[in-house]
Amino acid sequence: MADAKTTSFNLSCPVPRVADDRIVLAHGGGGRLTHQLIEKIFLPAFSNSMLEQRHDGAVVPVNGARLAFTTDSFVVRPLIFPGGNIGDLAVNGTVNDLAMSGARPLHLSAAFVLEEGFPVADLRRIATSMAAAATRAGVQIITGDTKVVERGKADGCYITTAGVGVVDRPLQLGATHARPGDAVIVSGPVGDHGVTILLARGELQIESDLASDTAPLSDLVARLLDATTGVRCLRDATRGGVATIANEVASAAGVAVVLDEAAVPVRPEVRGACELLGIDPLYVACEGRLVAVVDGDRTDAALDALRSHPLGRDAARIGTVREEPPGLVLLRTEFGGTRIVDLLIGDPLPRIC
Amino acid sequence: MADAKTTSFNLSCPVPRVADDRIVLAHGGGGRLTHQLIEKIFLPAFSNSMLEQRHDGAVVPVNGARLAFTTDSFVVRPLIFPGGNIGDLAVNGTVNDLAMSGARPLHLSAAFVLEEGFPVADLRRIATSMAAAATRAGVQIITGDTKVVERGKADGCYITTAGVGVVDRPLQLGATHARPGDAVIVSGPVGDHGVTILLARGELQIESDLASDTAPLSDLVARLLDATTGVRCLRDATRGGVATIANEVASAAGVAVVLDEAAVPVRPEVRGACELLGIDPLYVACEGRLVAVVDGDRTDAALDALRSHPLGRDAARIGTVREEPPGLVLLRTEFGGTRIVDLLIGDPLPRIC
Repeated sequence: MADAKTTSFNLSCPVPRVADDRIVLAHGGGGRLTHQLIEKIFLPAFSNSMLEQRHDGAVVPVNGARLAFTTDSFVVRPLIFPGGNIGDLAVNGTVNDLAMSGARPLHLSAAFVLEEGFPVADLRRIATSMAAAATRAGVQIITGDTKVVERGKADGCYITTAGVGVVDRPLQLGATHARPGDAVIVSGPVGDHGVTILLARGELQIESDLASDTAPLSDLVARLLDATTGVRCLRDATRGGVATIANEVASAAGVAVVLDEAAVPVRPEVRGACELLGIDPLYVACEGRLVAVVDGDRTDAALDALRSHPLGRDAARIGTVREEPPGLVLLRTEFGGTRIVDLLIGDPLPRIC
Repeated sequence: MADAKTTSFNLSCPVPRVADDRIVLAHGGGGRLTHQLIEKIFLPAFSNSMLEQRHDGAVVPVNGARLAFTTDSFVVRPLIFPGGNIGDLAVNGTVNDLAMSGARPLHLSAAFVLEEGFPVADLRRIATSMAAAATRAGVQIITGDTKVVERGKADGCYITTAGVGVVDRPLQLGATHARPGDAVIVSGPVGDHGVTILLARGELQIESDLASDTAPLSDLVARLLDATTGVRCLRDATRGGVATIANEVASAAGVAVVLDEAAVPVRPEVRGACELLGIDPLYVACEGRLVAVVDGDRTDAALDALRSHPLGRDAARIGTVREEPPGLVLLRTEFGGTRIVDLLIGDPLPRIC
């Protein structure tokens, strides 16, 4: 398999070097360049054990409690799209990062960078959606900030949310905990959000009823964790999609992740759009789906728990953790072949969140 | 005084109505329009008791601890200026918001919105400054995010930091606690940061040795709180400067704040630049100065404590809280007159933080 890996790298376009280069859109895509930026710039500068865990949320002891803390900026274009807008996306995104740490989300902050000339009515609509999303997720937005930049900057509105929560359960979740024999589960169809954003930009001129899957997953996670102690790792499949999570797990735990293409739930509209674009739905962002790595013996309990919740109705086991080849993600294709699923180098869908 | 207040409003330019208007730069200036945006859009949407306190940091109970939580976005232009850059500014700003809540700052998040084409070397320099500022303030940057937007957006780099801390002391700080007889103290010369940014833009073509006062104030606050229990309210004098804080105190506590112009420490270079520009240093942002409202009987203890710290060496009592006229800030000018110091409607120095 070492040969296959080498071949795969050689087929890719040259990896731009972070050290002496300029920022490109793919640095924000969640794939290889984002990882490089973290490794080359942020980890050396901010070096500490929490950051090195490379989870979207950090868990730290504060006065005896296990506090989860996370942040995300949202620069999605367009601001309003079928199924949601930048506001509920920003709330759900941070709620989900907290939930993936095993935390009960409690409080959110919201910082706005607004463009001069942005309609106040749009801001009101976005704020109202944020409030509704917060209520749905059982959190409060308790602090915030507003900055304004000149016309032509900031595309109307960027939002950065941060969130705090508490890990009540005696959990140790993390990609490093994955072990051979574990099951890889996804909570529903993948790629809805990314394809919805793409269609909303009108570039493909496709009509569709597809909507973003943006949703708070904290309740679904609680249902899963109530049902089984076999959960090793939880991730929400945002930028970079399921393929990127599988790579992070394989790399962090030094295991192989073998995915079964036929088992991955993908809506026909998403599949169709991806075929037109030549992209793989495994890399397309969801905003309301989680990937769980679960003790293989607890697969059924985990699937039953997820499927008993409206947001996990279509949960499916999509793969297995194996010992070999360590660090690689393999896909059993629907045609019976096997191919390597690597981290993306470019960003096929920039600014989807 | 009611007449004076009315007159003051009549002399101002018409206040744009938030409800049916568009965002203007002054919505981010920290003055009247920022307050309107909060009152008309964010408070109604996110309605909860913490936000209504209108402090930069929220304090909430979490598993028995009093957790402080705050966020700020930074869009300063230029990114690098005498005395600092957007990185240490972003760390110090959030550390200071936590400190003003009476909290011991613990952990920070950092979310970057980068412009395509931004030099990676500049990002490294900024990240290194953030790390140094975090070390100086005794906090860790434990979680983060990176998004990239197209060339022409985001002026290179916007940073949003959020922070958590713990309030260990049995404190109840807040602008509502100000009482007649209290002293108003500032920890050092005002306006250094705002004027430094303005000069760094080169628009005034003035040479100067002035540098931003950006600094973490948590240690200074600890020194003050150790020395006296008479502290009612702490604010860092950022956007809108000392004048805006005085207005927030007057309005929140239903008191008058009477400032003594001759007592306000202002460096000659800052005074000179402000005279050239026709702006009042009382409105110009600092990034390393706090305003404390302190029990009048504890003034000396508070001043001694502040002056014993390098960041408070030039602390001065600049005013007094009075009963009448409630809600107003009055300035005893150096020429013996008295004038009303209102919230600003425009933003004389946009994007200084």
